[in-house]
Amino acid sequence: MEQQQLQARAIVRNIGQLVSVAQAPIAGASGPLQVLNDAAIMVDTEGKISWIGPSQEIDELVACSEQEHITVVDANGCVVTPGFVDSHTHLVFAGDRSEEFHLRREGISYGELLRQGRGILTTMNATRNASTEMLSDLARARLASVRAHGTTTVEIKTGYGLNLEAEERCLSIINDLNDSSSSPHEHIRIVPTFLGAHSVPPEYRNRRAAYVDLVVEEMLPAFARQARFCDVYCEREAFSLDESRRILTRARELGYQLKVHADQLSPSGGSQLAAELGAVSADHLDYASDADLDAMRESGVVATLLPGCSYTLRSPYPSARRLLDHGLTVALATDYNPGTSYSENMQMMLGLAMSAMGMSLEEALTAATINGSRALALQDQTGSIEIGKCCELALWSIRDYHEIGYHFGTNLIQSILVL
Amino acid sequence: MEQQQLQARAIVRNIGQLVSVAQAPIAGASGPLQVLNDAAIMVDTEGKISWIGPSQEIDELVACSEQEHITVVDANGCVVTPGFVDSHTHLVFAGDRSEEFHLRREGISYGELLRQGRGILTTMNATRNASTEMLSDLARARLASVRAHGTTTVEIKTGYGLNLEAEERCLSIINDLNDSSSSPHEHIRIVPTFLGAHSVPPEYRNRRAAYVDLVVEEMLPAFARQARFCDVYCEREAFSLDESRRILTRARELGYQLKVHADQLSPSGGSQLAAELGAVSADHLDYASDADLDAMRESGVVATLLPGCSYTLRSPYPSARRLLDHGLTVALATDYNPGTSYSENMQMMLGLAMSAMGMSLEEALTAATINGSRALALQDQTGSIEIGKCCELALWSIRDYHEIGYHFGTNLIQSILVL
Ligand SMILES: [Zn+2]
Ligand SMILES: [Zn+2]
Repeated sequence: MEQQQLQARAIVRNIGQLVSVAQAPIAGASGPLQVLNDAAIMVDTEGKISWIGPSQEIDELVACSEQEHITVVDANGCVVTPGFVDSHTHLVFAGDRSEEFHLRREGISYGELLRQGRGILTTMNATRNASTEMLSDLARARLASVRAHGTTTVEIKTGYGLNLEAEERCLSIINDLNDSSSSPHEHIRIVPTFLGAHSVPPEYRNRRAAYVDLVVEEMLPAFARQARFCDVYCEREAFSLDESRRILTRARELGYQLKVHADQLSPSGGSQLAAELGAVSADHLDYASDADLDAMRESGVVATLLPGCSYTLRSPYPSARRLLDHGLTVALATDYNPGTSYSENMQMMLGLAMSAMGMSLEEALTAATINGSRALALQDQTGSIEIGKCCELALWSIRDYHEIGYHFGTNLIQSILVL
Repeated sequence: MEQQQLQARAIVRNIGQLVSVAQAPIAGASGPLQVLNDAAIMVDTEGKISWIGPSQEIDELVACSEQEHITVVDANGCVVTPGFVDSHTHLVFAGDRSEEFHLRREGISYGELLRQGRGILTTMNATRNASTEMLSDLARARLASVRAHGTTTVEIKTGYGLNLEAEERCLSIINDLNDSSSSPHEHIRIVPTFLGAHSVPPEYRNRRAAYVDLVVEEMLPAFARQARFCDVYCEREAFSLDESRRILTRARELGYQLKVHADQLSPSGGSQLAAELGAVSADHLDYASDADLDAMRESGVVATLLPGCSYTLRSPYPSARRLLDHGLTVALATDYNPGTSYSENMQMMLGLAMSAMGMSLEEALTAATINGSRALALQDQTGSIEIGKCCELALWSIRDYHEIGYHFGTNLIQSILVL
C-alpha cells in the first residue's frame, strides 16, 4: 500500500464501464473483453498502469494528502476503452483528389486516371511542391481529428514523395508530429513507416529497376534510424513480387520491421511474401487464398483489414469471418489516404466491419485496439488496459459499450486521455 | 433597390460555394445543383429569401446604415447548402435496444425477438412507462444532434405508444419540440406524423381488428389537428394491405396527408397502395416490383430510401439507380429509430447511398434536400436555396462540396443557420 501511494502519478476514477480488452485475467472483470463496472485506474511515476480495480478502493490506495500531487481524472461514469490503434495510414500529403473520386463513380478506371497523370501522381506532385510548413500543418490538422475520434496510436507512412529528398522530408514531418498536441493528455503515439515503394514515380517510368535500386541502395540505408517499418505496395500497378522481396529483404537486414500491402486488387503473392520474410503484418488481403492465410498464420503475420477501401471503391468487402476462422490475428485500420479511404475515424471502420465483414462488436473492438498494436509490434505497450502498459485511453460519451456500432454515423468519443 | 434595402432582415455574405439545389435557374450558377461561387443571400422581413447573387454586390444592396438593424452572417468562404430534410424518423422513444442489435448479428431473427417480447415491444414498454419529461428530454437531446449534423427539417412519427393516451402524449411531445433550440438561428422545423399503425400492441394480439377499429375510430379523429401525416407500417409483421387501406382511407378523409412503410421485408403491396391513395411518399421499397415503381411514378409518389436499415440489418441495399431509372423522385432519410437504424446523421445516409446504392453526389444531395421536402409536401418552403423560400441552411467546414461523400466518417457540418 505504502509503495503504491508513493508510486502514483495519476488516477482515473469513476469509470462507469472499463472495457479493458486485457489479455491476462483482471480480477472482477467479465466477458471476452474483460469488462469491469465502476472501475478506477492508477498510473505510476513511470507512466505505466500500476493498478486496476473498483472505483471505491482507489481513495484508500491513494491518500488524500498525496492526491494534491497527482493528476486525478473523473470519468463521470462513462465508458472507457483502450484508445484505438490505427496501424495503417498515409496521412501526410497535399492536394485534392475529390474530383477523381467522383469520376471513378462515373466509371473511369484507376488505370485510366493514372494514364491521365491523376491518381497517386496528383498527390505526389502536390506533396513534392508543398512547403514543409504546409505539409506539417495539414498533417497536424488531420491528427487533431484522428485524436478527436478516439485514436491514441497511429502509424503513418511516407510514399507520396518518391524521391530521396521528398521521402526524407515526409519522414521528418512524421517524426516531428510526435508532440504536436496542445495538451499532454492528448499526446498521440506515432509510428513512422517508410513506403518509398508505393509507386514508381514518372521520372523512372521506363527504368523501374533504377527506382528499385534507388530505394534499396540509397533510401533504405538513409532512413533506417527514422522509420520503424518498411512497407511495400506489392501489386500489379506498383511493385512485383520479386521487386518487393528485394526491397523488404534489404530493409530487414537494416533493422526495419516489415509490412506488406498485399493481395488488394489481384492475387499478388504479397501475403505469402509477408509470411516468408516474417513481416509483422500483411494488409488488405482481398485476394488472399486459403493457402496464403495458412502461411500467414504459421508465421504469425497479423492480418490487417481496411474496410474504408471497399467502401470507397465500392468493391466487395473481404470477409473478416473467413480470416478469423483461419485462426489469424485480425486488425482493423483506416488506411487514411486521399485516393481510396479518406477517413480518420476508426469508429466508422468498426461499423463497416460489423455491417459488412461479419465481425461481432467484441471482435471489432479487439481488432481496433490490441490487434492494431500487434500489427505495430507494440502489444507490450498499448492496445489494452493492463498492469505495466501505458495508459492510453478513449473516453466515450456513452454508458454501455454495446452502443458502439449500434448507434452509428456519429462520433461517440468524448476525448482521448493519455497519462 | 430602395425597396430591397427596406425589406432586408438578414444577409449571409462571403459564401465560398453556394450549392443552391435550386429548381428554377439562378443567374451565374452552374451544374445540376446550380452552384454559385462567392455568393450572398438576402432574407426579407417575412423571413423569405429575397435575393441571391455575388457577394460583392450585397453591400451595395444593403446600405451600411441599414446593416445595424439586420442580422449579418459571414460564412467565411465555406460551402453552404440547403439544410437536410430528413423526411422519416421515429426519434421520440425511451429504452435501450443495443443488446438486441448484437443478438441479431449472432443470428437470432426479429420474429424470435418479438416472441421473446423484445423488438418494438421493448421500446413500446419503455416509452409507455417513461415520464413525459424524460421522453421530452431524450428527444430534445437527439434533436440537438440531428441539428449538429446539418438537418433543418425533420419529420417525427409516433408509433411507440400504441394506445390512445400514449400516442397522444408522443404527438404532444413532437409538437412541443418545435422551439426547443437555444438559438433561434438553429430552429429546426418539425413535421409530426401519426403512426398508430406501427405494430399491433400485445393487449390486442388476439383481436387485431379491434386495434384497427381503435386507430380508425378514435385515434385518427382525435389527432387530425396535431399530426400532418398519417403513416402505416404495411408489412407481414405489422398491418395487412386491407388494414392499411382502411386506415389510410379514413385518414385521408380527415385531412391527413399520407405516407406508407412499403415493401420493406416482403412484397406487401404498400407501394401500390400509396399510388392508389395518392400518398405523398412510400418508404423503404426493398421489394417493390417494376409495376409498383411505375404506379408510384404515375401517381407522383416520392420514393424514400432508408440506407441505415440495410446497414443495420446487413441486408442488400435497394438500388437507388433502379428507382431513378424508373423516373421516380427519390428522397433519402435516416429512419432514425432504436431498432433498425440508430442514426441521426444524414451525411452517413448520403455516404451509404453513394457507396452502396449507386447514387452520384448530385443525386444524393438532391435526395437529401429538395426531394426530402417533396416527401413532406414542403417543397414550396424549404429544401433548396431559392427566392421566396425559407432560409434554412447548412454551413459546412469545407471549401468544395465535392468533399461530401469523399471525406467520410466525420461530421463536416459546422452549423445550421435558420434566418
Ligand atoms: Zn495503404
Ligand atoms: Zn420507419
